[in-house]
Amino acid sequence: MRRKEFQVSEPELCESFLEERHDGVLTFNGADGWPKAVPLNYVYHGDAVYFHGSKHGEKMAGLAADPRAEFVVYQAHAFIPSYFSDPYLACPATVFFRSVRIRGTVEQVEDPAEKSSALAALLKRMQPEGGHAPIDAEDKRYAGSLRGVAVLRLDPEEMSGKFKFGQNLSEKSREKVVTGLCERNLPDDADAIKRIRDSALKCPVDHS
Amino acid sequence: MRRKEFQVSEPELCESFLEERHDGVLTFNGADGWPKAVPLNYVYHGDAVYFHGSKHGEKMAGLAADPRAEFVVYQAHAFIPSYFSDPYLACPATVFFRSVRIRGTVEQVEDPAEKSSALAALLKRMQPEGGHAPIDAEDKRYAGSLRGVAVLRLDPEEMSGKFKFGQNLSEKSREKVVTGLCERNLPDDADAIKRIRDSALKCPVDHS
Repeated sequence: MRRKEFQVSEPELCESFLEERHDGVLTFNGADGWPKAVPLNYVYHGDAVYFHGSKHGEKMAGLAADPRAEFVVYQAHAFIPSYFSDPYLACPATVFFRSVRIRGTVEQVEDPAEKSSALAALLKRMQPEGGHAPIDAEDKRYAGSLRGVAVLRLDPEEMSGKFKFGQNLSEKSREKVVTGLCERNLPDDADAIKRIRDSALKCPVDHS
Repeated sequence: MRRKEFQVSEPELCESFLEERHDGVLTFNGADGWPKAVPLNYVYHGDAVYFHGSKHGEKMAGLAADPRAEFVVYQAHAFIPSYFSDPYLACPATVFFRSVRIRGTVEQVEDPAEKSSALAALLKRMQPEGGHAPIDAEDKRYAGSLRGVAVLRLDPEEMSGKFKFGQNLSEKSREKVVTGLCERNLPDDADAIKRIRDSALKCPVDHS
């Protein structure tokens, strides 16, 4: 059950999360009828998700036969131990996280200009400092590689986010979690506290 | 194409990776025929993968109708910029990573003893320091929660690992990458260098 209080309805929040991250899992039906899960680097570019890879193999065969796919990007922000809010029961233990799922069909990009633009965007995401010749379909030193690599485009038909930062907690439990994170003070905990505060403001829970 | 040089044939390496990690993506066919990708915490326990979640919703509906699933766990270890080994082309840019994919069928665990044992293992993975009463089907304070939560077990039929640490590189390119990582010296780079060295010893590539 996707709990309503964690759902993100603003597309710009999903998109900004997709722009921050660079890997996820692409899911499709395999040629053998089994579901397949392939971790991939990606770039969210021009309202589409682009991947690259080999022109052969199970991903290409599966998606050529059935282009329906779901791609999911996930980031764990903070593990919340049960004892932050309950001295006895283990039940409150949880992970605060963000995830975005994108459903759509995948097609192979054949147009050299779109292909090189997608690869350039992908590399810029991973290697923003540059340090290579621009990826250009006109550059002869890239021509063979550009022909040899497959570029896939997932066109989103549906995008849904789930950002869990204690929106389901009472104010009292939430403050206990914040205190616990303050004291624990792991590298990501200050950021998690900020997200808990922002989420509580956006999604006040009525526990009256 | 799953390049042979990155494949891990030793089940114990896959299992030890699964024991190190605690989240992944579960993939199954949705009730609507579309592939679904759900990020989940898990524990690898007694040769099976256990998850927990709500008793209702798309995951339970999809898996009840078609229990075939694939679960993938992924860890990015180091981004390798192209200029570590090539001053001109962007092509050598890559990520060194480990991933394990598990294919099998998922069933809901009903036996209270297996259920509490799986939940205890899951929590021990996330909260090894304890700080809660033992999860025990006999403890009345847990009874309601244990009945309310769903525990799913994925029984692996096939497990495959892909650990990429430059096994496809010539010795010369590999040394350039190692030098680049040494100089960059990000927190994970020393560990990545160790894995590159170990992989090269295990999988020498004949470039003659």
